[in-house]
Amino acid sequence: MLDLDKPQIMTLFDFDTAVQRIHDAYIASAEGNVQTGEVVHLAFAEANGDCHVKSGYIAGTASYVIKIASGFYDNPAKGLPSSNGMMLAFSAATGETLAILRDEGWLTDMRTAIGGALATRALARADATQVLIIGAGIQARFQAMCHAKLMTDRALNFHIWARNASAAQTLSTDLNAAGYSAIPVPDLNAAIGAADIITTTTTATKPLFADGLVRKGSHVTAIGADCPGKQELPTKLVAAASLRVCDMASQSLHHGEFQSAHRNDASLQVTELGHILSGEQIGRTSDEDITVVDLTGIAAQDIAITQTIIDAAAGAKAQ
Amino acid sequence: MLDLDKPQIMTLFDFDTAVQRIHDAYIASAEGNVQTGEVVHLAFAEANGDCHVKSGYIAGTASYVIKIASGFYDNPAKGLPSSNGMMLAFSAATGETLAILRDEGWLTDMRTAIGGALATRALARADATQVLIIGAGIQARFQAMCHAKLMTDRALNFHIWARNASAAQTLSTDLNAAGYSAIPVPDLNAAIGAADIITTTTTATKPLFADGLVRKGSHVTAIGADCPGKQELPTKLVAAASLRVCDMASQSLHHGEFQSAHRNDASLQVTELGHILSGEQIGRTSDEDITVVDLTGIAAQDIAITQTIIDAAAGAKAQ
Repeated sequence: MLDLDKPQIMTLFDFDTAVQRIHDAYIASAEGNVQTGEVVHLAFAEANGDCHVKSGYIAGTASYVIKIASGFYDNPAKGLPSSNGMMLAFSAATGETLAILRDEGWLTDMRTAIGGALATRALARADATQVLIIGAGIQARFQAMCHAKLMTDRALNFHIWARNASAAQTLSTDLNAAGYSAIPVPDLNAAIGAADIITTTTTATKPLFADGLVRKGSHVTAIGADCPGKQELPTKLVAAASLRVCDMASQSLHHGEFQSAHRNDASLQVTELGHILSGEQIGRTSDEDITVVDLTGIAAQDIAITQTIIDAAAGAKAQ
Repeated sequence: MLDLDKPQIMTLFDFDTAVQRIHDAYIASAEGNVQTGEVVHLAFAEANGDCHVKSGYIAGTASYVIKIASGFYDNPAKGLPSSNGMMLAFSAATGETLAILRDEGWLTDMRTAIGGALATRALARADATQVLIIGAGIQARFQAMCHAKLMTDRALNFHIWARNASAAQTLSTDLNAAGYSAIPVPDLNAAIGAADIITTTTTATKPLFADGLVRKGSHVTAIGADCPGKQELPTKLVAAASLRVCDMASQSLHHGEFQSAHRNDASLQVTELGHILSGEQIGRTSDEDITVVDLTGIAAQDIAITQTIIDAAAGAKAQ
């Protein structure tokens, strides 16, 4: 049995392999080839924390994966990361434990950001370069890095806005130090009007900005909403978008960013990302379209990224 | 972080402590003090296997527990146990992993059998001594041992019936070697008519015997049904019982032994075991009652038995 901690996992991780596997996992999911367990949600109100369990199996593969991810949002004040958790892989032939990846949430953060960047690459205009990231936490950081790594055909300029201006400044400084172009922006409304790409990475429970600010031709990827009651975007923006894409319709309409628009309109049309990535369904049709993506996170991503670590460990052992 | 394998867990395990904690956990559950996650069920038809994930948190305690348990029923032919899995405990204050108990299903088998024995002790006649165990697998073995250990006020005689007569013979021989009184019985119908206590431990999907065979005053505990479509007892026996007790009504009526009777009668009355154990509700009222218990297994049991191992490990370390 493989038992790896976060530094070992980070050493074995290969970005390009993970991107390809997660890309393929979205397609497998959209095509109905992923068995997904109920999403478990435990809440610890007194500790300002929660825990999600996601699980699944991609038909025909060797292992099923159970992912435990927690967020305890007062942890940073205690000197601890807010994200935590592990990925567990089991043999789909015998149930034996194949791997315990004690990634402390790192693989979830990474697969979430890769998902966001894959969605943006698939749906933003070809000439989109101005990226507004809302939020300055760990997911904002991962999203910026994954967008830059996936969209190397253009020079992206990151604009960072966060309620905590000093966090936005820190993230910008760190991104610049890593070789990317980033500035913190003080005026959210002005930044939205100037953005080609908007990525929201907050835990908001009401819209972060008013409807009518996103300009034509922009692309929006909402990452934050992952349980009932969370919302980052104006409901009207979602309802009026040229195209709504999500990772899994059943999750998105129930507890993702699209829940609010879906409550208003039970017939709300959405397309799953895998169908866009496979080319089976058309994405952006003009430079005037406003495209909106809602990612709630799916077990297929967890399975895909876990499998890359297992394979890398097997490869490292064989060498 | 505590990381224990099955032999280490078995060494630290204390039966009496586990019985007390599981007893209390049923009460906490019935009284609404347990937050229970959705039960996850993954099925692997080609491998004749499945995997359940149960999770929960007892209000006011230090940790939440996620239990992964698989059953791959062709494993014995491969020289592997059919049950597998682990218990995971996390801090309810920070989400940090406190313990990985790689029990391979042993703690689940044990907490399931302790639950069965607690239910039988609470509801069987005070002079009930003739115990029929249906099934001769690992759970039949654990049930017999836990019944004997919990009901030391009387000498129990175990009668073992299984479709596989040689397995019934083996289990009887082993129980006798362990100091208990057991015989295999060839005629199931006759054995049912002679039993004071019947415990069913099979994966049956239709009743194991006909209605009308269980005599007045008997107690029946059904352990096997834990997903839609499973059933061990005649629907009429359940419907006509003097008292129906279950571990958790929402599970039992949906995917436990009581699902069939509940489909026929949506107003079927059931009592949760915790209310019987606390004395809040009355159990058996006469020596003529037929009492039936359905145990689907609840997260509170997993939390309770996991906590005993964590505490025992802390105690062992302190010494």
